[in-house]
Amino acid sequence: MLPGHRVYLGADRPLKLACGADLSNFPLAYQSYGELNADKSNAILVCHALTGDQFLAESHPVTGKAGWWDLLVGPGKPLDTSRYFVMCTNVLGGCMGTAGPSEINPETGDRWGLNFPVITIADMVHAQAMLLDHLGIEKLFAVIGGSMGGMQVLEWAALYPERVFAAVPIASAAQHSAQNIAFHEVGRQAIMADPDWCGGEYWKDGKSPHRGLAVARMAAHITYLSEPKLHEKFGRRLQDRERVTYGFDADFQIESYLRHQGISFVERFDANSYLHITRAMDYFDMAARYGGALANAFRDNPVRFCVISFTSDWLYPTAESRRIVHALNAAAANVSFAEIVSDAGHDAFLLDEPEFYRVLAGFLGGAAYHRGLHELSGE
Amino acid sequence: MLPGHRVYLGADRPLKLACGADLSNFPLAYQSYGELNADKSNAILVCHALTGDQFLAESHPVTGKAGWWDLLVGPGKPLDTSRYFVMCTNVLGGCMGTAGPSEINPETGDRWGLNFPVITIADMVHAQAMLLDHLGIEKLFAVIGGSMGGMQVLEWAALYPERVFAAVPIASAAQHSAQNIAFHEVGRQAIMADPDWCGGEYWKDGKSPHRGLAVARMAAHITYLSEPKLHEKFGRRLQDRERVTYGFDADFQIESYLRHQGISFVERFDANSYLHITRAMDYFDMAARYGGALANAFRDNPVRFCVISFTSDWLYPTAESRRIVHALNAAAANVSFAEIVSDAGHDAFLLDEPEFYRVLAGFLGGAAYHRGLHELSGE
Repeated sequence: MLPGHRVYLGADRPLKLACGADLSNFPLAYQSYGELNADKSNAILVCHALTGDQFLAESHPVTGKAGWWDLLVGPGKPLDTSRYFVMCTNVLGGCMGTAGPSEINPETGDRWGLNFPVITIADMVHAQAMLLDHLGIEKLFAVIGGSMGGMQVLEWAALYPERVFAAVPIASAAQHSAQNIAFHEVGRQAIMADPDWCGGEYWKDGKSPHRGLAVARMAAHITYLSEPKLHEKFGRRLQDRERVTYGFDADFQIESYLRHQGISFVERFDANSYLHITRAMDYFDMAARYGGALANAFRDNPVRFCVISFTSDWLYPTAESRRIVHALNAAAANVSFAEIVSDAGHDAFLLDEPEFYRVLAGFLGGAAYHRGLHELSGE
Repeated sequence: MLPGHRVYLGADRPLKLACGADLSNFPLAYQSYGELNADKSNAILVCHALTGDQFLAESHPVTGKAGWWDLLVGPGKPLDTSRYFVMCTNVLGGCMGTAGPSEINPETGDRWGLNFPVITIADMVHAQAMLLDHLGIEKLFAVIGGSMGGMQVLEWAALYPERVFAAVPIASAAQHSAQNIAFHEVGRQAIMADPDWCGGEYWKDGKSPHRGLAVARMAAHITYLSEPKLHEKFGRRLQDRERVTYGFDADFQIESYLRHQGISFVERFDANSYLHITRAMDYFDMAARYGGALANAFRDNPVRFCVISFTSDWLYPTAESRRIVHALNAAAANVSFAEIVSDAGHDAFLLDEPEFYRVLAGFLGGAAYHRGLHELSGE
């Protein structure tokens, strides 16, 4: 059993997915830290990225590694669990307890596999809103997330503006670019090229497309780091050897590192989930739903936004965040914007970035004051 | 039979490879355009890139597509075949007639496969020098190449300064970066993860790791294009459909394009060659041989250099070319440098880029004048 909570939602009224399918009585797994206050006004929903999960601030139940936002979530930290009720759901399509390809399809009694409907970012958000209904949380104090998490944040603010007080999309974009889609397609093709994928039904033969999924992860991982960071971290340094071997072993540290990233990823992630979630990201294009003008998604929007990007992020570069900010400005929304100087690349939102933490803590403190949650700190 | 020429070299004196192995009586395939003049002073050696070959300026014998530098090589073109003898060899390790993994190992009578020695860029250049000996060409008028071709150009100038009059490294680098190695490693892992690779001996079972090689090509291909070019060329446009299908077909044009790139590549390229040639590039680090100072590779170097880069190339960005120029300047070499404004990305050196052509033609014209090949044009 995974730690945390798991509820079944949509028993009475199913979740209507963008593809047209209904999902009823589906599981949604989540984890929370801190206490929900009496009027349920201090909830922060954190939305995780492509390969993240709900284990924000505790060791991971599969890998034993520290929670992916351990640095940010806890007493006295920017997402201060002595003040806020911080929760995170495993996304729809995921593989850590929420309905997804590796969960059981109640109609067949077997795993969903590829029969799990292709979902969208908005579908993920609707499912999270059903969880809030279940928990009796009328309105989130804040919704925060990086990368695909930021996409969910944008959808939250657009689809449920009355249920969000503050929104923080980090290192994200309002649509997936051609290059983003291209990298995802490489990953999917790597998985589907693995004969152990078995047309998506690998579990039936006791198999798993480990090799394809590892290659997908390796390709993706390169996009999460900046070139300067790779140079600083690895450069051309050799792995436990004095000279190159004139062979195909991992002579270079960067090769060894990437192989490790691939191998360790397949322990904790389901290949079909990877297909489904990358697809949801590819399909993400908020402006398209609003006549091509992103600003239309945010007309008369009461949410307080803080958009954050990182200088060295080439996967979701600052220009993408700036496009969001321009749309919010055009819609006369309440928005602040911070581009954090960092050489860590896209993964900066997961790393120890003091300036990022200061911006986030400052914004949340100000928002909490306006929300009446507490006094301004330092006053 | 492939068009062009094929000679056996190293029968008397073998090629000593960097790894320590000897290669004797090995085939080297090349193609040429134009006429070698009486004193053999008008030869231009073009060095091809990772997946290029010797068919510069004629339709490809396998794919039927136009030669990869058709736009640049021919009468009246920048590499003017009415003036110059333009030649190109298939690189060592390649799969179009030169010794490589898919050629026969004379000692076993079977294909080399992975037993082909892991070669270096310098090895490729030494083999080309043996061809010049064979042809009685004392000194090249120019050696020119893009990407991995540019690496060969740099090695030519460093290893055989007395045999090169002018050198043009284009969209290249003096060493492979951690990010470059990382992308190559993803490609190699994709190939080696394909069960049809059969530990490198696929031909024995009548197999070929098509799927793995296609994935490798797809990943690499993304790095050859700039993000703005991908946006302009494909954006989020759908492939022959009005709306997304909520499935894993190629909904987007970029997906269809990448899949096509992968599929068409495997028709003409050998998977083990891909392993060997990417490895040669990874091992490329000119400064390392010269005490870590690139300038030391070019002390008292008489070659006239023209270094060319493209603004939107993120695989071998201008900073890498600038590092070469700085080293040449520090060595008091004769160098000009042009950064061409282009949004085409790394592949710009293969495309119709008029400014690039003007720079190249202008440099070659001036060099030819100094070499005494002809008058300055327009005078």
